[in-house]
Order: sequence, then structure tokens, then C-alpha cells
Amino acid sequence: MTVSNIVREKTDQAVETLEETNVDAWITFGRDTADAPDPMQPLILGEEFIWPGMVLLTRGGRKIVICESHDAGNIQDLGLFDVRPYEESLESAFSEAIEEVDPETIAVNYSRSDSTADGLSHGLYLELEHYLEGTEYHDALTGAEDVIAGVRGRKSSTELERIQKAVDLAQEFLEQMRRSWQPSWSEADVAAFLHEQIDDHEIETAWERSMCPVVTAGAEADHGHAKPSSRTLPRGEVLRLDFGVVYEEYCSDMQRLYYYPEEGETSPPAELQSAFEDVRAAIAAGFDALEPGVEGHEVDRAARDVITERGWPEFKHGLGHQVGRRVHDGGAYLGPTWERYGEAPYREVSEGEVFTIELGIETQWGYLAQEEMARVTESGATYLTEPQRELKPLVEA
Amino acid sequence: MTVSNIVREKTDQAVETLEETNVDAWITFGRDTADAPDPMQPLILGEEFIWPGMVLLTRGGRKIVICESHDAGNIQDLGLFDVRPYEESLESAFSEAIEEVDPETIAVNYSRSDSTADGLSHGLYLELEHYLEGTEYHDALTGAEDVIAGVRGRKSSTELERIQKAVDLAQEFLEQMRRSWQPSWSEADVAAFLHEQIDDHEIETAWERSMCPVVTAGAEADHGHAKPSSRTLPRGEVLRLDFGVVYEEYCSDMQRLYYYPEEGETSPPAELQSAFEDVRAAIAAGFDALEPGVEGHEVDRAARDVITERGWPEFKHGLGHQVGRRVHDGGAYLGPTWERYGEAPYREVSEGEVFTIELGIETQWGYLAQEEMARVTESGATYLTEPQRELKPLVEA
Repeated sequence: MTVSNIVREKTDQAVETLEETNVDAWITFGRDTADAPDPMQPLILGEEFIWPGMVLLTRGGRKIVICESHDAGNIQDLGLFDVRPYEESLESAFSEAIEEVDPETIAVNYSRSDSTADGLSHGLYLELEHYLEGTEYHDALTGAEDVIAGVRGRKSSTELERIQKAVDLAQEFLEQMRRSWQPSWSEADVAAFLHEQIDDHEIETAWERSMCPVVTAGAEADHGHAKPSSRTLPRGEVLRLDFGVVYEEYCSDMQRLYYYPEEGETSPPAELQSAFEDVRAAIAAGFDALEPGVEGHEVDRAARDVITERGWPEFKHGLGHQVGRRVHDGGAYLGPTWERYGEAPYREVSEGEVFTIELGIETQWGYLAQEEMARVTESGATYLTEPQRELKPLVEA
Repeated sequence: MTVSNIVREKTDQAVETLEETNVDAWITFGRDTADAPDPMQPLILGEEFIWPGMVLLTRGGRKIVICESHDAGNIQDLGLFDVRPYEESLESAFSEAIEEVDPETIAVNYSRSDSTADGLSHGLYLELEHYLEGTEYHDALTGAEDVIAGVRGRKSSTELERIQKAVDLAQEFLEQMRRSWQPSWSEADVAAFLHEQIDDHEIETAWERSMCPVVTAGAEADHGHAKPSSRTLPRGEVLRLDFGVVYEEYCSDMQRLYYYPEEGETSPPAELQSAFEDVRAAIAAGFDALEPGVEGHEVDRAARDVITERGWPEFKHGLGHQVGRRVHDGGAYLGPTWERYGEAPYREVSEGEVFTIELGIETQWGYLAQEEMARVTESGATYLTEPQRELKPLVEA
């Protein structure tokens, strides 16, 4: 069972993270989770609660699930949890468990800035407060942001395999598109070709299908968040794609640039090639700065400095976001220390996290952007994508 | 656009409900709503927020949406809202709007007991508190349970049409199943037949497909929440189905009983027929008690009394739940005043709400249960299902 592989790996990792973050107990509390899923539930339980239920993981390594008796069967079958079914009300089973664990801190899933760490509803937070009222644990509740950043960000081996597969498939589809490309193809035709690949593999796009891939054909194309249009690519222009797929619930995300040569042209114009190299150099600088312990804004800065030193305006977004079950995942963020990014760019990068490294510049050929994906290793980083090193030509298939 | 029909109807209804419930302003506040949807968002906005955004409806009839500029386009296209896009942070746009509205009460979506009224995350609740800190509105926040019970429970004309269609289709499929039935069919074959109907109509089951329909063949079948098995129905036994479909996002939910006669038998055994009539009479008593202003537990009581007066043990659940976008919807509940049901059975029934009326008894033929659906009218109720009046025979097709 692949699901329980993930749940086994992530619950083990959670126990380690509780130790690192000095948190005694971590509760994921939900109900009707098919309709209102906590983003952490697929990672640490992999099953749904119809009635109120909780996953209680402790620093000491206990993995307890308290749930209504009808919800218990599937969870017991996982063989991973000390399952405590209740009949009437969750409260007494909870009180009993919390006395056994006797925690000084109880982390629960709320965060003002990170939606992946904010799966607890306010009503259930009040319910939990009510359970703890008058007990010695009343002041123990705290936000689980740090725990979740550790558990969700640092990918397990099964998660890494799936992300790599999602990367490999997206790259394969893009290369097939390039080899099959016809000058008569519109942006929409390019998207349709990639959708056909995706459907043949019975997988999904990494974000809303009508916008994945983003395809922009040439300098006159709409470089905003527009859907692929009927525009075709003129000679001497650049085709840009932003694309990703989901493989067994894990995403990829990359941007690629292709050039449609003028007749008889053997390489792109020097000025275009030079702009391309500037983007590539900035991405390489970001990649080189990526290592455990660095704060996200430092990585962003390394790339941003290359861009400005080479005379381009700063890119108007962060250099890279995490990728996992969501294509834009939470936790540490490779972004500048702008107010809109809150505390995320100050978070330290950890081994096992997966980031995009992406940026673009506005040129006479339109928006030239590249996006790679990299995994943080023990002492640096390694690319998951095969980084784009040349502006490959589009030639009639 | 059918979506904006619903949104138009429900936002108008919300304004009326705010007046009735003495609430000045109602805020639905979300972000990443494709991943973490507030259950009310499809009703009162019908679009998603990627960035933090809110729907602010007021007693005076204002319909304001504050959202990030990239989220604004689709919402502006609805033509229903005063859309206020922000670039940097939601806070100042929110502060400006709240001063204009100047509310004494601001209802937000949290509830300890009703998940359909508990779509606000604790992190966003804290964010909202932070926005209001030091203003005259700091103590204005309150739970929107009553507002949501009114808006979600009382169905608009478009909602009623869809629910009726979901009922009609489920009934049609069940009758086709009955006419096509073969003695060799297992529980799983019965389910497969209904799934085929569903797939042909490109609709969905009302709950998890592997458990919808529930099919139990005879007294020896597993009458818990088991998946359809390879068991066939012996002669002289009863086939029970619990089934519903989703039509354009609205559900149906019903239970039906069929009898497979002994050879030469022209009607069910008198004792079975009598038990069937007892269930039918209790359901009819519940239906007769259903009218605006009655509290849910009174309706439950009417049916429960018939069952106990006729010598059967009480059924171990409430008589009926609401049906809408979820097959078990929130708000008023036709249940006994047991602790596990909290305040819901004390809530008054309103015109336009749609309930199941369902109960069963344990007999020598197994669990005999029926489930109908009814809409509350101005002075009583009307069935949406065609109530089961006889134990129809299963005969070889």
C-alpha cells in the first residue's frame, strides 16, 4: 500500500520533528474531512474522518487516533496507530489520552500566514479549548507551523520518488511537444498536445487544466495569467511554457523557452542568447546558494543580485516556492523580505525540501523566464529537473 | 449561467436572513479555497480565492468582495458584487469597507457543532481579530450559525429544481433496477447496475461510490456500513437499498425495500407486511408533524412514538437530516434531544428546508428501513420522493 508508506514515513518524521521543535504533542483535529480536509491529513493519516476525530502524535513516539467507532475500521487496518474508537463523545477519550501523554505543549494546525498549516477550523479550536478548560493543559495549545514546516517540507523517500516521476513525465511531454511541433500550431494546439500526453498517462495537470500549461507565443502574446489563445508563433520569436503534472498526488512545476529560427538561421540572435544566459546565470546563482540552514531570502538575494548586476529590473516575485502535494506548498520560501511574504522568507531551508528556482525578464522577445526544481541535500542542492542550458530550436516536425 | 443563478438567489436570501437574525454584516473569509473550501463559498460566491479574500454581505443589502487583483476578474464577471481588488494587503481594503458598513455585529463562519457553518480556519480568525484590534469593531465578531442555517437550509428555486431532479433520477434508476433484476444478482451486481445508470447519465453517487448504494440481500446480510458483497437474495427475503445521486451539485438520499416472493406466493407474508406498515406509519407521522416553526425533536418524537407504540425498539439515530449540496447537510435536524446531537434538534424548522424522513426496525427479515425526502412548505410539507407504499416484488426480468 503506497498510501501507508507515506503515512508511515511522515508520522515517523513527525516524531523527529516534535523532538527538534520542542513540542510534546501534535494534534490534527477534523470532521467531515472528505468535504473539509486538513491539508496535513493525507500525510499523517491518509484516511478520512466523518465524525470528529484526531491524530495525536507525541515526542515520545506515540501515534494515537481517537475517532468515532464507524471511522475506526479503515484506520485500524493501517496497522500504524493506537486507535481509540468512541461511541458517544470524543471528549472523554481525548481527556484520557491527554492525561497519559501529559504534554506541556500541544501544537494544533493554525497559522495566520500559511494555509497548509491552517487546517483547523475555528469552531473545532473552540471545542478543543472547551475540552481543556479547567485542566492543567489549558494553556498548552500553540500553533503547529514549525512542526508542519518540518513534516511537510522535508520529503520522505516515497515523496521524492513521486516528485521525481512528476518532473520526468513533464519533461518528457515537453520534449515530445518540441519534436512534434508545427508552425501552424496555436498556443491552444500546444496545450492540447500536452493534455493528450497527460490523458494518455491517466494523470492530471499540476494546476487548473485550462491554465496548465501556460503557453505564450512570441513577444505580442499576453504574458499575464491568460489561457492559451489561437495565436501562432512567428519566426524569430520565443515560445514560453509554464507546466507541471501530478503523479500519485505529487506535483512538478517548470518553465521552458523554445526559439523558432528565422529561415536559414543556425542559432538565436546574440542579444536573445545573452538575455537567456542572464536568466540562466541568476538561476544558477540561486541554486548555488541553496543549502541547509540558509534563510530563504538569502537564496532569493543571490539570484536577484545577478539580475540587477546585469542591468535588468528585479523580478516582482519570490525566487522559489516549495513543491509537494500542492504545486505551491507552504513552509520555508525563497522570497525577498517584502511584507506580503510575512515570515516565510526568514525560515531556514532544510535538507529534503523541494523548491522551484524561477525568474524572468522583460525583453523585446517578451517575458523570458525559466523555472527549475531542486532538492536540498545534506550540504547543498541537486536539480530534479534537467536544467535548461540552451534555447532549443523549434523546427517543423 | 446556472452558477450565478444560485449565487444571485443565495446572496439575496442572505440579506433577508441577516435582517431576520439581527446581524449587520456577514463575512466569509478564505484563501486557497480550491484546496480548503469554506462550505458556504459555492453558495454565495461560486468562485475561488487563491489569495486571501472575503465576501462581505450586509443587512442593508450590500454585496462586497475584497480580493487580490488576480482573483478579481472572474468575480467581476459575475456582475453581482461590488468588487474591491487589492494589490499589497487585504487589511486596508477591509478596514475601509468595514467603516463604510459600520456594523454592530459581524458574523463569521465558525460553529463547534455544525461543520457546514465552520468553514473559517482558526488562523484566519486570528487574522481578522488582528485587523479589528483597536477599532470600535473589536467585539463585533460572532458565529454565523444562525445566518448559515437560514441561507443554506432554505432552498432557492434553482436548488429545489436540482434536488428534485436528483430525486427523480435516483427513483428512476431504482425502478429500472427492479425491472431488470435477476435472481442470480449479488449485492455487488445490484450496485453495478445502478453505477451503470449513473455513468450513462454522467452524474455521481451522493456519497462514496463503493458504499453507494448500500445493498443488503436478506436477513443474513451484513446490515452495517458494509460494501455490497457477493451475496444473492434468497426467496422469501427482502432486498434493502440506501441510495442517492448528485445532480448539478445537489443530492438525493432514499432507502427502498423489495421482496423476492417464494414460488407461487402472490403477496408478502402478513407479518412482514405488518412490519413494513409500521415503518410506513411512523414515517407518515413524522411527515405529518413537519411544518414551519416546529422544533426538530418534535418531528422525531412523532415518528418515534408510533414505533414504540407498535412494540418496536426505538431507532438509534435521528429521524431526518437536511439534504442539499451535502447529502447530510447542517442546520435544523429532526433528531432526539440526545447529547450527541447538541443544539441542532432544538432549531426551528423553516419553509424551504429539505429533510430526509428515515427509520428502520430489526425483524426476522433483517433491518427493514425506509427513507423519504420532503420539503417544508408554508403550512406543512410535501414529499419530493414518491413515498414507498408497498413492498414491491422482485421478479425475474
